[in-house]
Amino acid sequence: MNVISSISDLAPRLRRREISPVEITRECLRRIERLNPSLNAFITVTAESALAEARAAEGEISRGKWRGPLHGVPIALKDLIDTAGVRTTSASALHENRVPSQDAEVVRRLRQTGAVFVGKNNLHEFAYGGSSLVSHFGDVHNPWDVNRIAGGSSGGSAASVLSGMCCAAIGTDTAGSIREPAALCGCVGLKPTYGRVPSRGVIPLSTSLDHVGPLAATVSDAAIVLQTIAGYDRDDITSEDVSVADYVSAVSADIKSLRVGVLREYFFEDLDAEVASAMEHALRGIATLVREVREIRIEVPTDRTLQAAESYAYHAENVAKSADEYKAETLRRIRTGEKVSAADYIQRRSELDQARRTIRDIFSTVDLLITPTTPIPAPEIAPLKGHPEALRPAELKLLRNTRPFNVWGLPAISLPCGFTQNGLPIGLQIAGPHWREDLVLRLAYVYEQATAWHKRPNVDV
Amino acid sequence: MNVISSISDLAPRLRRREISPVEITRECLRRIERLNPSLNAFITVTAESALAEARAAEGEISRGKWRGPLHGVPIALKDLIDTAGVRTTSASALHENRVPSQDAEVVRRLRQTGAVFVGKNNLHEFAYGGSSLVSHFGDVHNPWDVNRIAGGSSGGSAASVLSGMCCAAIGTDTAGSIREPAALCGCVGLKPTYGRVPSRGVIPLSTSLDHVGPLAATVSDAAIVLQTIAGYDRDDITSEDVSVADYVSAVSADIKSLRVGVLREYFFEDLDAEVASAMEHALRGIATLVREVREIRIEVPTDRTLQAAESYAYHAENVAKSADEYKAETLRRIRTGEKVSAADYIQRRSELDQARRTIRDIFSTVDLLITPTTPIPAPEIAPLKGHPEALRPAELKLLRNTRPFNVWGLPAISLPCGFTQNGLPIGLQIAGPHWREDLVLRLAYVYEQATAWHKRPNVDV
Repeated sequence: MNVISSISDLAPRLRRREISPVEITRECLRRIERLNPSLNAFITVTAESALAEARAAEGEISRGKWRGPLHGVPIALKDLIDTAGVRTTSASALHENRVPSQDAEVVRRLRQTGAVFVGKNNLHEFAYGGSSLVSHFGDVHNPWDVNRIAGGSSGGSAASVLSGMCCAAIGTDTAGSIREPAALCGCVGLKPTYGRVPSRGVIPLSTSLDHVGPLAATVSDAAIVLQTIAGYDRDDITSEDVSVADYVSAVSADIKSLRVGVLREYFFEDLDAEVASAMEHALRGIATLVREVREIRIEVPTDRTLQAAESYAYHAENVAKSADEYKAETLRRIRTGEKVSAADYIQRRSELDQARRTIRDIFSTVDLLITPTTPIPAPEIAPLKGHPEALRPAELKLLRNTRPFNVWGLPAISLPCGFTQNGLPIGLQIAGPHWREDLVLRLAYVYEQATAWHKRPNVDV
Repeated sequence: MNVISSISDLAPRLRRREISPVEITRECLRRIERLNPSLNAFITVTAESALAEARAAEGEISRGKWRGPLHGVPIALKDLIDTAGVRTTSASALHENRVPSQDAEVVRRLRQTGAVFVGKNNLHEFAYGGSSLVSHFGDVHNPWDVNRIAGGSSGGSAASVLSGMCCAAIGTDTAGSIREPAALCGCVGLKPTYGRVPSRGVIPLSTSLDHVGPLAATVSDAAIVLQTIAGYDRDDITSEDVSVADYVSAVSADIKSLRVGVLREYFFEDLDAEVASAMEHALRGIATLVREVREIRIEVPTDRTLQAAESYAYHAENVAKSADEYKAETLRRIRTGEKVSAADYIQRRSELDQARRTIRDIFSTVDLLITPTTPIPAPEIAPLKGHPEALRPAELKLLRNTRPFNVWGLPAISLPCGFTQNGLPIGLQIAGPHWREDLVLRLAYVYEQATAWHKRPNVDV
């Protein structure tokens, strides 16, 4: 029997001791053992400590101490999130043997709620790409078709959630790195509001655009994980002290009064025909659930100078000392930020701040925004692998619909909304006002419940 | 009779129609006519529109419409604060004929409360200096000794407040440009918390460090002006949406429970003997007013790269096109930011953000901080004028105690705390936690009431 199901299903059974954290953890580890050789979604598997954590959770629950819905639940971490005593590589030779002494703040919070850590997910090297085809530890493969990419940079996280190697994962998203692999692999990925989840102890790509968030099997599960990791961290300069809603309850609130804006301009350009068709189907469905669905227009920021400059700022010292430790394509991308002047950066940063202010106006006329997450489903690996001239444009296309929400700093979720004829998942993106993850989760949950796209493939392993 | 007194004295008399806005405005204009030729505190005097505004205020008040304590009160504006239809020069040939079409947000707010605008104050060109000896419109002179500097960059504002050419003035402060001239001229100058007062429509020097705030004759008057200009501006990317206290009532609250920290390390170094003596006297006085005065230590940020880079970012286009329009020394200062890389800037900016977080810790042990505002009283003009090699070090010394509070973003006030033997004012700086201007004003008010240093010279003009 497959014991891996959604966290919202598992949690009450764990609490009632109908199922044991050890049993679930063993099942995840068994799946990792079977599936990871073909998917390559994990760089490091922490089987021993995971079982110890699971046993500790089992002991606590049996003594009546239940820490909440993540108690005893196997979670995976993108391998740029620091874990005390467990190497954190950023999928780079540069950090192959880097063992942090401290947990990242999100890990500390998850640990406190009794989560079990099964391992560290493979990713695009230093998160600087959307394919996970550039990693010191090899490519990540899509669970629906191992000849296709899982997306990136949180590719291993999405692949491992979808295939039940963990119940949820923590990823990061600078231009779409949570939502894009979630869309390509058919799971749920949530990028919270900028400043909502602490990034302390997470290797940065671009500090003005980086977001930490959950990948999960369902919208409710994303809400459960967000509930644990959201909230102010006074030692993180990007963290904001804004009150955290009850996301878990929020998902079931009524949505009939909501007004939804569809961003056709820009976001519906160059859509694959099957993605376009799935989107129209989704929009018709959503129109029956909410007060209003209507098209709106919006100025879309597309500049990447800020990301290039901030990425270079972080890597400058290592690029000078140890350039050979980077994959060539990563090094090339990082170096695009080398020549940016402070004056140019300041201009871009001021445009970012302004864009984050002016986007608020849109929410006087609609409550939520909808776009396709990616214009195309997961592409094949062969034409991209080893072809940087093809890889970068493909990645930029895959991230074009998600990137603007990093600039705006708005919370945005990707969830499944269909499949192509050859069985590849298609993702729907829903975004909302700053700090209103609850609103985003509400529409996502109602849509998910009204459809069946989130059901996992019945993988027998 | 001298009708110019503090706003808190004038306001009730204006309301009761015992004195007319026109009468007060005429007296300010008469003083400008008499004193400005020797002080050079104004670049533009708006006598005609000021009298029209005063008559309008008089009409409203006589019809029973009283807008508050600034209604009919003559205010001056530093000449880098935009005024619709009135040229705004930044004391530079470059902007000699620049006439904004819109008021700055602070001007709009002051206008709504019925203030009368008597003119635009001279300043250090583009606010890039602490002496006001570099201005296309000539030097500003100190009202206590015209052979000495008035300080800067808000030198004209401090000189005009002290000499009763206006009842209060609005200045800007990037490293001390409100507090330092307030100290050298013997008036009150308040730099609010970073983000407290909108800077929209104010020519920037360094957007991460710029603060707009009042210069006034007394602490109560500074509170009255702050009350009008403080508060969120959604169209200003540096503005923060934090609730505004009742500063006017706050000043009279009890301070007996307050703990005051004295920053001797760094801030008491290189003090002029008379400044040192005045400070010890002030500290003994304050010790009788509060629960505790004790020495504390703190890491002091001194880097100026951020300011250089941000200043260059603003001026880059004009420096390329119209370098000759700048004073040579201003151009030299701006160009120090030319070679700063984005990577270096990002590092400094991140240090700034971190410094603004870590400074909060200090307020777990004390409520307020005290330092001398400047280590020396106003220096003579002759050895500095035309000697950039002497001018810059002198200015850096004058600003060394104020600059760190711009980095920390803490609210800080300067108020008079004594005089030298040859009659030059000495300033005391009080700083508090972010957003607690009320606390800063409370101690400043009680100290001011316990002393007589704020009494103006009885200038007969």
